[in-house]
Amino acid sequence: MKAIGFTQSLPITDEQSLFAFTTEQPKPEARDLLVKVEAVSINPVDTKVRKKAASQDQLDKPRILGFDAVGTVVSVGDQVTLFKEGDTVFYAGDISRSGSNAEYQLVDERIVGHKPNQLSAAEAAVLPLTALTAWEALFDRLVMKPGEGAGKTLLIIGGAGGVGSIAIQLAKQVGKFNVIATASRPETSQWVTELGADQVANHHSLVESVRALGIEYVDYIFNTADTYGHWDAMVELIKPQGAIVGIVESGQPVDLSQLQFKSVAFHWEVMFTRSLYKTDDMIQQHYILEQIKSLVDQGIIRSTLTETLTGLNAETLKIAHQKSESGKMVGKLAVVY
Amino acid sequence: MKAIGFTQSLPITDEQSLFAFTTEQPKPEARDLLVKVEAVSINPVDTKVRKKAASQDQLDKPRILGFDAVGTVVSVGDQVTLFKEGDTVFYAGDISRSGSNAEYQLVDERIVGHKPNQLSAAEAAVLPLTALTAWEALFDRLVMKPGEGAGKTLLIIGGAGGVGSIAIQLAKQVGKFNVIATASRPETSQWVTELGADQVANHHSLVESVRALGIEYVDYIFNTADTYGHWDAMVELIKPQGAIVGIVESGQPVDLSQLQFKSVAFHWEVMFTRSLYKTDDMIQQHYILEQIKSLVDQGIIRSTLTETLTGLNAETLKIAHQKSESGKMVGKLAVVY
Repeated sequence: MKAIGFTQSLPITDEQSLFAFTTEQPKPEARDLLVKVEAVSINPVDTKVRKKAASQDQLDKPRILGFDAVGTVVSVGDQVTLFKEGDTVFYAGDISRSGSNAEYQLVDERIVGHKPNQLSAAEAAVLPLTALTAWEALFDRLVMKPGEGAGKTLLIIGGAGGVGSIAIQLAKQVGKFNVIATASRPETSQWVTELGADQVANHHSLVESVRALGIEYVDYIFNTADTYGHWDAMVELIKPQGAIVGIVESGQPVDLSQLQFKSVAFHWEVMFTRSLYKTDDMIQQHYILEQIKSLVDQGIIRSTLTETLTGLNAETLKIAHQKSESGKMVGKLAVVY
Repeated sequence: MKAIGFTQSLPITDEQSLFAFTTEQPKPEARDLLVKVEAVSINPVDTKVRKKAASQDQLDKPRILGFDAVGTVVSVGDQVTLFKEGDTVFYAGDISRSGSNAEYQLVDERIVGHKPNQLSAAEAAVLPLTALTAWEALFDRLVMKPGEGAGKTLLIIGGAGGVGSIAIQLAKQVGKFNVIATASRPETSQWVTELGADQVANHHSLVESVRALGIEYVDYIFNTADTYGHWDAMVELIKPQGAIVGIVESGQPVDLSQLQFKSVAFHWEVMFTRSLYKTDDMIQQHYILEQIKSLVDQGIIRSTLTETLTGLNAETLKIAHQKSESGKMVGKLAVVY
């Protein structure tokens, strides 16, 4: 089968940063599905892995990226119970395995959902990683179940990004939080408002702009952006006994003790944790994706797709990586076959 | 009234590190109780405040320490509803106000409980600060309610200390956790076992000694000791999606990102948060202390008193501070009038 991968960590402008190659089509065993990929999306994890995984030595064989996909199940392992051949599915996958930038991909059925009916392949492909991240951050980390945000204020830092764009919708429609989303440009402010944010703050002057809304403390913070860069503002804005969830590794050490006297909690959310550690509750990701499908089919949640590239090849993926690395993306980008 | 306080941060061996003085007896207003103090306890916060509060300049007037007390209500403010004159009470108090090292003390009724019937003043005086800390850490931070520890393993680092000694009991009897407590000496190992720990590990070789018990990961960690010193071991031992609660300020910055890929939460617990920030749920501390009273009266929880000094004066308090500073205390020490 055809695939796109890398063997060296190179700038995306380098011809060899991502390249096409052929490799053997894998066979599904146990709980794996073999999926024929129809559309993929790009996430910051793609560029992070590309820049890190072969920064020292050249890899022995190309690594395939891609942590979002829509496709059709073409065969199944002997322990598969949730899906059958011909099902159209969407999933983010497992960071320890080959990704979706290929004709075919293996994925454990416990982290896969049925594709929402009303969406195109591109519209559906942009959802899994960000929706799993946002759902887990909101309902497995910050609060214990949907609806528990009622009467509570949630500040989403980086509201217009991939995770922010779905987090606003889930926080508002499922969590019932009062949502303040951050944005810093007119188009991003408009975007987060369209997605359902009750109020908009500016992450370049976070404390001042939240206080300007008449809010002293927020009950929860979901920081989808720079953990270190927003640390002092989060320390200032979080309510005593409140909780913060972060998803971006802190480049520099943060002063955790600043949260002490408020008895605040800091939660990490990485949507790869369940599959990476094969946790007992790994199948929760199947249920989360099925709920996302249901919410989309009912028209409660919309796709965060803002741009589509056609032709899944090294050239389109390089463009996708470049756009992701710019840090300026609004919503999400898909690449379709 | 007589009181003991300090105006300069001095080594405890210095004559002026703590001294007796006389000051006006305070009058209760609003929700305050005026309590005639009968017994107090010593906690690490006493020595920390003594060493920090006047490390730069001499205070204008002596600061009174003491964050645990048993006493009798002698008068009440006009909004008091929970207590009446003559009630015998126990409480930790509020770090922003004068402490219990005095004949009389004002305390907000919302952070006070009725003294357990079966205990002496000394036995009861050692409980409030540590029991509030342990209760909040276990049932307001790590899990949401009593009983939710069933089937889960909790590692308590520093099991024989003041907080550890009550935390073991609450975790076992109220939380229903499987409790591993750390201790490093024969007498402390015996003590934590008597208090109900299911297993004992050694905090000087924490990872190895927990693994030697056949346990790879623990669901929860309650670190009552050095946050920085045990950081790497906690990173290693915590289960993916697990949670850690800490109560001791980290002297050096910790690498928070080490917890990222396990999607772990770090919670701070400071039992002064509710009174310091006058949180809406401040009265929870009244309910917690009433539950402690009930558990003690039923014989489910025992006092952690191991030593009593007689005569609440500068000399006994200096001995108490010295013992606390040694870091070797087993259980808790009381000073009675």
